[in-house]
Amino acid sequence: MVPSPPAYHKLLVPHHPIPAAHRDDPTPSTSASHPSPLATFPAGIAPLGQSGPTPDASSPTPLSCHGGSGVGLVLFGAGLVSKALLQSLGEETSCCLLYVVEDQPEEVECAFGTEVPAGTRVLQQQDAAVALGDPRVSGAIICSPPDKAPEMVRDALRAGKGVFCEGLPSLDRQTAEACFEEADRCGRPLVCGFYKRFDPALQFLYKKVRDSRALGRIHRISTISSLYPAASLSLLKASGGIFYNAAMHDIDIISLLLGESVPDTVFSLGHAFCADMGCLKDVDTVAISMKFPSGAIVTLDISQHCTRSCDQRLEVHGSQGTLRVDNQNPLGITEHGTSVSICPQTQAERYREAYRELFRHFLRALKGQEPPVVTKEQFLWTLQVAAAAEQSWRNGSAVDLHSSATDLAAVKAEFV
Amino acid sequence: MVPSPPAYHKLLVPHHPIPAAHRDDPTPSTSASHPSPLATFPAGIAPLGQSGPTPDASSPTPLSCHGGSGVGLVLFGAGLVSKALLQSLGEETSCCLLYVVEDQPEEVECAFGTEVPAGTRVLQQQDAAVALGDPRVSGAIICSPPDKAPEMVRDALRAGKGVFCEGLPSLDRQTAEACFEEADRCGRPLVCGFYKRFDPALQFLYKKVRDSRALGRIHRISTISSLYPAASLSLLKASGGIFYNAAMHDIDIISLLLGESVPDTVFSLGHAFCADMGCLKDVDTVAISMKFPSGAIVTLDISQHCTRSCDQRLEVHGSQGTLRVDNQNPLGITEHGTSVSICPQTQAERYREAYRELFRHFLRALKGQEPPVVTKEQFLWTLQVAAAAEQSWRNGSAVDLHSSATDLAAVKAEFV
Amino acid sequence: MVPSPPAYHKLLVPHHPIPAAHRDDPTPSTSASHPSPLATFPAGIAPLGQSGPTPDASSPTPLSCHGGSGVGLVLFGAGLVSKALLQSLGEETSCCLLYVVEDQPEEVECAFGTEVPAGTRVLQQQDAAVALGDPRVSGAIICSPPDKAPEMVRDALRAGKGVFCEGLPSLDRQTAEACFEEADRCGRPLVCGFYKRFDPALQFLYKKVRDSRALGRIHRISTISSLYPAASLSLLKASGGIFYNAAMHDIDIISLLLGESVPDTVFSLGHAFCADMGCLKDVDTVAISMKFPSGAIVTLDISQHCTRSCDQRLEVHGSQGTLRVDNQNPLGITEHGTSVSICPQTQAERYREAYRELFRHFLRALKGQEPPVVTKEQFLWTLQVAAAAEQSWRNGSAVDLHSSATDLAAVKAEFV
Amino acid sequence: MVPSPPAYHKLLVPHHPIPAAHRDDPTPSTSASHPSPLATFPAGIAPLGQSGPTPDASSPTPLSCHGGSGVGLVLFGAGLVSKALLQSLGEETSCCLLYVVEDQPEEVECAFGTEVPAGTRVLQQQDAAVALGDPRVSGAIICSPPDKAPEMVRDALRAGKGVFCEGLPSLDRQTAEACFEEADRCGRPLVCGFYKRFDPALQFLYKKVRDSRALGRIHRISTISSLYPAASLSLLKASGGIFYNAAMHDIDIISLLLGESVPDTVFSLGHAFCADMGCLKDVDTVAISMKFPSGAIVTLDISQHCTRSCDQRLEVHGSQGTLRVDNQNPLGITEHGTSVSICPQTQAERYREAYRELFRHFLRALKGQEPPVVTKEQFLWTLQVAAAAEQSWRNGSAVDLHSSATDLAAVKAEFV
Repeated sequence: MVPSPPAYHKLLVPHHPIPAAHRDDPTPSTSASHPSPLATFPAGIAPLGQSGPTPDASSPTPLSCHGGSGVGLVLFGAGLVSKALLQSLGEETSCCLLYVVEDQPEEVECAFGTEVPAGTRVLQQQDAAVALGDPRVSGAIICSPPDKAPEMVRDALRAGKGVFCEGLPSLDRQTAEACFEEADRCGRPLVCGFYKRFDPALQFLYKKVRDSRALGRIHRISTISSLYPAASLSLLKASGGIFYNAAMHDIDIISLLLGESVPDTVFSLGHAFCADMGCLKDVDTVAISMKFPSGAIVTLDISQHCTRSCDQRLEVHGSQGTLRVDNQNPLGITEHGTSVSICPQTQAERYREAYRELFRHFLRALKGQEPPVVTKEQFLWTLQVAAAAEQSWRNGSAVDLHSSATDLAAVKAEFV
Repeated sequence: MVPSPPAYHKLLVPHHPIPAAHRDDPTPSTSASHPSPLATFPAGIAPLGQSGPTPDASSPTPLSCHGGSGVGLVLFGAGLVSKALLQSLGEETSCCLLYVVEDQPEEVECAFGTEVPAGTRVLQQQDAAVALGDPRVSGAIICSPPDKAPEMVRDALRAGKGVFCEGLPSLDRQTAEACFEEADRCGRPLVCGFYKRFDPALQFLYKKVRDSRALGRIHRISTISSLYPAASLSLLKASGGIFYNAAMHDIDIISLLLGESVPDTVFSLGHAFCADMGCLKDVDTVAISMKFPSGAIVTLDISQHCTRSCDQRLEVHGSQGTLRVDNQNPLGITEHGTSVSICPQTQAERYREAYRELFRHFLRALKGQEPPVVTKEQFLWTLQVAAAAEQSWRNGSAVDLHSSATDLAAVKAEFV
Repeated sequence: MVPSPPAYHKLLVPHHPIPAAHRDDPTPSTSASHPSPLATFPAGIAPLGQSGPTPDASSPTPLSCHGGSGVGLVLFGAGLVSKALLQSLGEETSCCLLYVVEDQPEEVECAFGTEVPAGTRVLQQQDAAVALGDPRVSGAIICSPPDKAPEMVRDALRAGKGVFCEGLPSLDRQTAEACFEEADRCGRPLVCGFYKRFDPALQFLYKKVRDSRALGRIHRISTISSLYPAASLSLLKASGGIFYNAAMHDIDIISLLLGESVPDTVFSLGHAFCADMGCLKDVDTVAISMKFPSGAIVTLDISQHCTRSCDQRLEVHGSQGTLRVDNQNPLGITEHGTSVSICPQTQAERYREAYRELFRHFLRALKGQEPPVVTKEQFLWTLQVAAAAEQSWRNGSAVDLHSSATDLAAVKAEFV
Repeated sequence: MVPSPPAYHKLLVPHHPIPAAHRDDPTPSTSASHPSPLATFPAGIAPLGQSGPTPDASSPTPLSCHGGSGVGLVLFGAGLVSKALLQSLGEETSCCLLYVVEDQPEEVECAFGTEVPAGTRVLQQQDAAVALGDPRVSGAIICSPPDKAPEMVRDALRAGKGVFCEGLPSLDRQTAEACFEEADRCGRPLVCGFYKRFDPALQFLYKKVRDSRALGRIHRISTISSLYPAASLSLLKASGGIFYNAAMHDIDIISLLLGESVPDTVFSLGHAFCADMGCLKDVDTVAISMKFPSGAIVTLDISQHCTRSCDQRLEVHGSQGTLRVDNQNPLGITEHGTSVSICPQTQAERYREAYRELFRHFLRALKGQEPPVVTKEQFLWTLQVAAAAEQSWRNGSAVDLHSSATDLAAVKAEFV
């Protein structure tokens, strides 16, 4: 069901042939040979921020953008982009953020500080086509909320761009599935933001648990995921709430560790300790319990707020022992009898390495070097479990995913 | 509802000529039915270890039993007594184990080693009246399984003995309630074996969480309880299974920490990883999740087996931070790069102090110095939650304890 | 060189025959048969607190003193007794503190609170003979400073009492040696207060390191010993200073772990961070480094003050790995993001178990059940190393104990 | 004494047509002696890897070397380069390793694997002038042993290159001083490989201890430094032994934390547990103790071998409490009851970040953006303390650095 590797071998980056010689050419005279990025635009639409008649001349030269070479990118939805992703973007020298598409200037400022990187152009949503039409752009990072993301995903794919969805492409299974299918049709990668898969600690665990079977048969897995600092209400609201913006990632990890895609039973309890959260008809604290066909019992403890440091733990208990991923103390510093506060860790810091690897994965996928690791099937199963957890919370009763197997089988059949 | 303290002030340790049973018996009419303790013996059968025709005269003088002074005790059901309790019994110098009532000699040997303490007499169950009729005995420790315990509890109370039930007096609410009521009627204490309450770490936590409100509002509590070494099948079978022999203790602690007796919702998942367990139609691994009226969400992870060391943890997350009770490393020894195995901790070792305090509490209760800390109401609520958890596991659906409030209110009314 | 076990076999407790029946006799009329403890006193001296002409009648009946039975003890020097020792004394039910000899009433109050235990009589130093002459007393606990201790040790031994010296019998080698020889001569045990030997963690380490050779060849050992709360100036002054009241114990442990009694080289640095300490011409912070014949290198970090919790660690590095004894967290409680202060540990709490075992060892030695574990030789070697460390600090140069081997050999010869 | 910052402002990375050496050379008369870089080559000898008569034309274009742009570097002594440094070199995209000068091909292979990076040319030592004469090269990394390093340092500086000395420029004070003076004279930076200064944990500590005075007055500092994997004999031999290749780094950190450059007293003990080490007349295990003018007492425990994971710890005890830098568990993974071996940490991994920062510092220094942070004075003091420690070990007596203050003052005077 995974798109066959050959499909990826065909992918090249940049998608449109630009001779390397040209890119590196130190003689400015040849720059004229670059097709104007705006040439594909309908004549009447002047891209934002370009007042003159010769947009070409004022076209931002991404000199500071890692030398202007590398993979060109556009980012949609600066308001929801995570700090961790921004950091990876800034560190990665083999790419270049050419456009940010965002209607709210304050969101751009909030994400990038007072100064957008030189070489990065800010566009209104209505001018998105400028970015998508720029042949230097080979990838689109979409941080928009799930209700707006599908359209952007589709547009980007159809414009021949590879897509990285930091949030979910959609909370709706059909729509999400359509996004993946569009990616297949366009022969471009659609990369999901399941960053926890890329965490070195969880990868170590995965190797021990799955590859070496170091724990024997898995009996129980439990996770604790509390954010620090707390996610903003607007983010939570936009991202589909705790089941989709937080639980999804833990469910993904659980499936990988167990090698089982869907539990038989899902039950969840939730509460809104924060009054604002209640207004959103969402909860800030959730406990999800699941039983998988192998018998493994899983509990996920998720909270949108945490005091002083993020709390991200996971433990796997098997017949041969236990492995735990504890919170990290990166500096290894402890204090005894003092009032020194020892470096709390934010969510962005905790998963900095994971985001870096995820982002590199996206860049490699853009270059056709590897297929997206999160497959359509994996995404859809995970989405289904998250939806079941939410449903369980709303109805107060357990959801039996096994009995709905017929539906799923049908869905599965379509996959092939 | 607690027996009024004055009732206890009158109690004395019955080493005075007049048997306490006689003196305190509120139902004198029944006392008449108590024959001479040895009268029930078939003439021809000499009680174990007594060769002479005048067993009374050769009655063992418990010289080694801490000087023969102190509180006299009888233990029923040596087969199920915990090591931790035996240890406390052995250490406590202000009491003296005068009788062990147990039909299986191998169980006695298993509990006490090849030699029963000098001064302790082993009786068959049918000769229990010898012990209960001995005026030196003021307390009965009942380790019998819940299906046999109620009768013994009743007999002991009616014989004027205070009772310590290491397991549950009964899994059945009515029967359990009847035991407590009998205790009230007899004016003798019935002490429940909720040992975790007496654990110094949990008491510290209780003080911080309840008395000082150090964590603000409680959001979440989670516990992990894995036994080491694993409980034997026979013990599990006899004790009512994982929900009653293990979950009860955690439920009790949760109620205390939250100050809430009953959750609104209980859901549980379970699995029998050990094939033998499945034969018992019981499970060895359970996850219970509960939501309390305050909004607090609780998860209990319970396992009957564990590798190399017991795993007993608890954490409370509140609006002001988190407190955790981790596993203990009593010696504080760690190894680095060696193959030295560092002292694993058994369940008995982990709760040694708790058992000691619980046992001292029983002795003080026997002397009328304090009432039993676990009240009838607390016991019944806890039993009800454990039963709901078991029911949830069997039915695969959540149990709404709130909606059954009417019944409970009725029950509660009866209490008063 | 160890006093031969047979010598101990002859010892009986109490030292003078008092029939058990008498001791337990509930009928006061028989008390007349007790020989008057004051009979050995010069007629004219009325023991403290006894105004009447018939001291016998007012002779304290140690009813509360664990039933008056057990080993009778006298304590000298309440001003310097450690809390840990007092606690052990209080817990041990097989002994009875009959006398406290102390000239300063405030010291007695400080040690025992406002009320000395019923059954314990407080004497002035000048009336010490009352205690030493009491046949119920079989052991003397001497907490007096090393300049006063030798005389008391001698007196007690000559009165047929076994002796437990909490501090050092003397800082002077000859005097200390004389004390041990006196003990041999009198056939009574002299037990040294080397409590660290009895610490369960260090005993575990000892077994692994010496018995199992689990670490291979020992390369390095390092210890950290910081007191909490800080030792009082008067205690430090009286006890001979940091080299004798603190370093001695670590040196003893090092010798045991290495199986080598004396290092080749000793060097030490010290500083008085506390101004008062400087006035005493002593230091409060010391680093001692030593090299042993095996090549093992040892560093001892010792401080008389510490913030919030005692700091008592030790680590042994060998060719096969490392074992560490870390500070203990007896309750296993940790806090995260709160301002809850988690149980600091005092020195007395840290070594409570060690003191208990040491004290029991003393009681067993009194009963002739075992010889003192700290031999004269071990004590003298340890004293010599501590003295070398002090000398190194004072002179600023390393002390070569190897070259002084001739003297030591001489000394050793005398031992035999 | 620190070269005034303006001097550094003038420094530029010499990728401009006019060789920096020429431009900055304070002694123009000698610059005349710099011929065309290749002119020094004997006519008949074609530099390694250059077959044609016009080596210049076939000069490798370092295409893979981060795009050929950035700072050009030459590395001397591949045999002793650390893995951590190589890693930093590989990661840093703003520089390009143009040459490796090393006579032993196997050392090159050992360091770089079977393939030297494309764009990097390997030269024999006798052809070093090729590299030093290449105007693209602006910096020299010198990993040669201290007996050979001074000449290379001098040559590189005189060729107008900035220098990074991974080991020590020299073990001899005069020679080392001459190196620094040469750097001043040439106006090029000489950067010392004191990597521990750049460790994030130690920098955090430094800020707390020095800037915030969070611990009050410093009483004690102790460090543990054990290598994993063990350093090779050849490395140890070449690098001057344990006092110079290991202790130097700890001494540097201590000086910074205390803000005191030289202790009053230094004493050390050492032993060669490894027989080979003894043959070198060096030791593999050392304990150094020092007392500083402030009264602070310091102990350094250093070992050249360690089992399974490096052991790098440091703790600072002050009047207000303690801060510890413990060993790191980067993944936060722990195992319980399994035989899974949890990621040991090599020295290179432990100080990866430190090396990265140190290397970036060198690049910035090359660009004239900042002066070397390790000043000549700091280096010489540290060298002096290490030498004193070695002397103490050899002589078996403490070294009084205070009394040698006159000499030092004299030396100091020379500095200015």
